[in-house]
Amino acid sequence: MVQDKLQKLGISLPVPPKPLAAYIPARKSGNLVYISGQLPLKDGTLMMTGPMTPGRNIEEAKAAMKQCFINGLSAATQVCDLESIKGVVRLGAFVSGTPDFTEQHLVANGASEIIPDIFGDQGYHARAAVGVSSLPLDATVELEILFEISE
Amino acid sequence: MVQDKLQKLGISLPVPPKPLAAYIPARKSGNLVYISGQLPLKDGTLMMTGPMTPGRNIEEAKAAMKQCFINGLSAATQVCDLESIKGVVRLGAFVSGTPDFTEQHLVANGASEIIPDIFGDQGYHARAAVGVSSLPLDATVELEILFEISE
Amino acid sequence: MVQDKLQKLGISLPVPPKPLAAYIPARKSGNLVYISGQLPLKDGTLMMTGPMTPGRNIEEAKAAMKQCFINGLSAATQVCDLESIKGVVRLGAFVSGTPDFTEQHLVANGASEIIPDIFGDQGYHARAAVGVSSLPLDATVELEILFEISE
Repeated sequence: MVQDKLQKLGISLPVPPKPLAAYIPARKSGNLVYISGQLPLKDGTLMMTGPMTPGRNIEEAKAAMKQCFINGLSAATQVCDLESIKGVVRLGAFVSGTPDFTEQHLVANGASEIIPDIFGDQGYHARAAVGVSSLPLDATVELEILFEISE
Repeated sequence: MVQDKLQKLGISLPVPPKPLAAYIPARKSGNLVYISGQLPLKDGTLMMTGPMTPGRNIEEAKAAMKQCFINGLSAATQVCDLESIKGVVRLGAFVSGTPDFTEQHLVANGASEIIPDIFGDQGYHARAAVGVSSLPLDATVELEILFEISE
Repeated sequence: MVQDKLQKLGISLPVPPKPLAAYIPARKSGNLVYISGQLPLKDGTLMMTGPMTPGRNIEEAKAAMKQCFINGLSAATQVCDLESIKGVVRLGAFVSGTPDFTEQHLVANGASEIIPDIFGDQGYHARAAVGVSSLPLDATVELEILFEISE
């Protein structure tokens, strides 16, 4: 059970975000659920803002990316049952950073590493990690997720 | 009818762009149509160029993003009938901007807000909005679209 | 046969990359194969690093983008037979560059132009090409690929 795995990992899903005016946090199409770009919001506050730089704490950015995944998993439950989620197909990991920051792949691991713990072999996913000039609300990271569900 | 909705909204679709040498504006796969990144071209000219900055007009950028969506809808008609388009699954909204511009989500609304007016409930979509350092031809915005069609 | 086309083009696929700890180079979902963002690695070394600038060699960047595609095609063979690949649905082309570099579309052609030579009409694909502030390991380009396979 997905719920059991989350509990073992000490992860409690936040209340799913309310549908926004013009777009929605999660959209189902066939057996795929597309999740909108998630920011590292925790208890209503961004965990990390501003660009990554070569000297800035990678572990903090990884934790922010993990939070994005948790928020995205919560968002998925708006359009499907948590236990119907089989795995993750793709992540799009965006890291705000200065041009000399080139460790986006390490930051993205903050999300990637937790996923097989939750979904087993079906948690292994394709991924693109890129550095961007800035993100909404000055967030340091943003994560897009594509879940696969049982039909 | 989609065509009726467009007419009510005062939107006339431009002539679909010609297929280019190496890639195409729209690619069908199953009941999904993937649209290439659209620039805010209107009558052969970019509506807006150069990066967004904190002081620059958001409404102008929203209008440019709306134009990207209109161009993408026109592109879709190269591979499917306009009336077969059921809705929008995902938008990828790229906003060229300086590092201190952090309102990509507001710019992306320029596309998002028009879509439910055209497609109703099936127009509600997932979305990622990010800031990039620059875009082709110095365009201010670029929009990728994933449409769902009836099979 | 795909293999014959590659041979005619003088392309030999590299050894597929080893699955990494937390994510994988290729993920199958239905009749689609999602390829992780590929860097221009050749014989274990990045072909090109650092940002594109208006004066920098476009042909070199196109060659790097072509290499990303070749690496991605190799990655696909970890989850499907090479001959089962029917075509390419979408490319996501990321080009590291300074804000005044605005020819991402020309760089992306390095991948796009080779694809119909390999897959014929089914090689024509949708595409987004954007400029980013930096990429993992300071690579100049990164390419995400969505292949369509026969079921």
